[in-house]
Amino acid sequence: LLSPDQRDHLDVVLVSPRNPLNIGAVARAMANFGFDRLTVVAPYVPHWREAKSAVGAPDLLNRARETASLAEAVADCTFVAGTGTLTHRKPEQPVVTPAELAAMLQGELARGGRTALVFGPEKHGLTREDLSWCHVLVEIPTDPRQPSMNLGQAAAVCLYELGARPASAANRDAAQPSQIAPASATSAALDRLADLIDQTMIAADYSPPAMRQANRHDLRLLLRRLAPNSTDNRRILGLFRRILWRLDKPRKNSKPGTENA
Amino acid sequence: LLSPDQRDHLDVVLVSPRNPLNIGAVARAMANFGFDRLTVVAPYVPHWREAKSAVGAPDLLNRARETASLAEAVADCTFVAGTGTLTHRKPEQPVVTPAELAAMLQGELARGGRTALVFGPEKHGLTREDLSWCHVLVEIPTDPRQPSMNLGQAAAVCLYELGARPASAANRDAAQPSQIAPASATSAALDRLADLIDQTMIAADYSPPAMRQANRHDLRLLLRRLAPNSTDNRRILGLFRRILWRLDKPRKNSKPGTENA
Repeated sequence: LLSPDQRDHLDVVLVSPRNPLNIGAVARAMANFGFDRLTVVAPYVPHWREAKSAVGAPDLLNRARETASLAEAVADCTFVAGTGTLTHRKPEQPVVTPAELAAMLQGELARGGRTALVFGPEKHGLTREDLSWCHVLVEIPTDPRQPSMNLGQAAAVCLYELGARPASAANRDAAQPSQIAPASATSAALDRLADLIDQTMIAADYSPPAMRQANRHDLRLLLRRLAPNSTDNRRILGLFRRILWRLDKPRKNSKPGTENA
Repeated sequence: LLSPDQRDHLDVVLVSPRNPLNIGAVARAMANFGFDRLTVVAPYVPHWREAKSAVGAPDLLNRARETASLAEAVADCTFVAGTGTLTHRKPEQPVVTPAELAAMLQGELARGGRTALVFGPEKHGLTREDLSWCHVLVEIPTDPRQPSMNLGQAAAVCLYELGARPASAANRDAAQPSQIAPASATSAALDRLADLIDQTMIAADYSPPAMRQANRHDLRLLLRRLAPNSTDNRRILGLFRRILWRLDKPRKNSKPGTENA
């Protein structure tokens, strides 16, 4: 159970939602459970307008943020959870239940982080690419004969678990950070680091151009698995900046005063 | 978390649902969480037909039972939970959370009972009259500024809690019946007892005719609060039959062999 203040540090993110009724249902579940911050990624404009102007639409729809990409939507976040079912794919992230997610979010929010809960389009859900921005995949345990949930209902179940359900003793324990740690790095900081490592790979002729896209994908996953805190992240960035500078400028031009000078 | 066999002993009951999309959403949540038994009370026929014939409608809609009254829908049940919010009324039943309901249902089902989870019409929810057939009122803890949930989403949250969420240690304990008790009396048996007591009240000139309806209402509540088991119920029925027979036939005509003969 997140406190009202913690709920203000969770963004609900809808990636390209299509059905205005579903958008309205997600907004209503948010209002039911005390969540106010909605971001919509690349919405289909006519349906998005229709959802906002529907009779009885919660105010939070008109305050919603719009972004062009998921990367932009979660840029400020230190912990991102994607939702979906595993029926047709092998997950690249740890898979957690909504109850486990509640405990993880509480820990992250207690350390001063910002978090996001991401829902994919109705038809196919989040892509493998979308999920590479996510630290975990939340799966609601459904019947294998009918695993796929309606978007508004999946949001209601997740937000109920985060905003309304009293934590069990076990969850309360898990929510207590065992030690005071710095907040995790933001998604944007991880993306900057990934960019830098990517450039470094190119500069170092690490792999053939045909592999670049797959490498970037794996890199995003790796960084989220490692989950560096903000201090770690700055250090690694500094290291790669140095490496890249060295690769671009061969030794003979190196700055005086460094260890390779 | 109810076992698949236990889920077959829970009926989901919709009282006069109006919106075909909501009916479909409830059926979908049932399929998602492994529940198969739906009863619809006094449905509005055109909308009910539309829901059943919708593209992708779960099979369980076509197997649904239809009844004219809630009393008939829950007649075989030994434990009935109504759903709703408390905003505008003072409850006459104990109010429980979905998590507490899960523990109570497990206990009842372990004793061999049959149970029902009842949802009211979209517009106003279950009436005070409807709730007098219910042993408890389940309330999903929502934000006081937006307490009322969409029917399909409320069903998804309740059925998730009953069909998918692993019980915490505390709930598992609560679900173990502390002693082997007979199953509770069915709703129909309680109604038969209420009828008999009602007739007894009339025969005894217990209260003015204007009070009869209120008395019947209070009687339903009382019997569900007492929750007699099936053996108790038969005993109380026997007692009131005897009393009623005595009231109808004054002493001079009494059967030989009884203590008043």
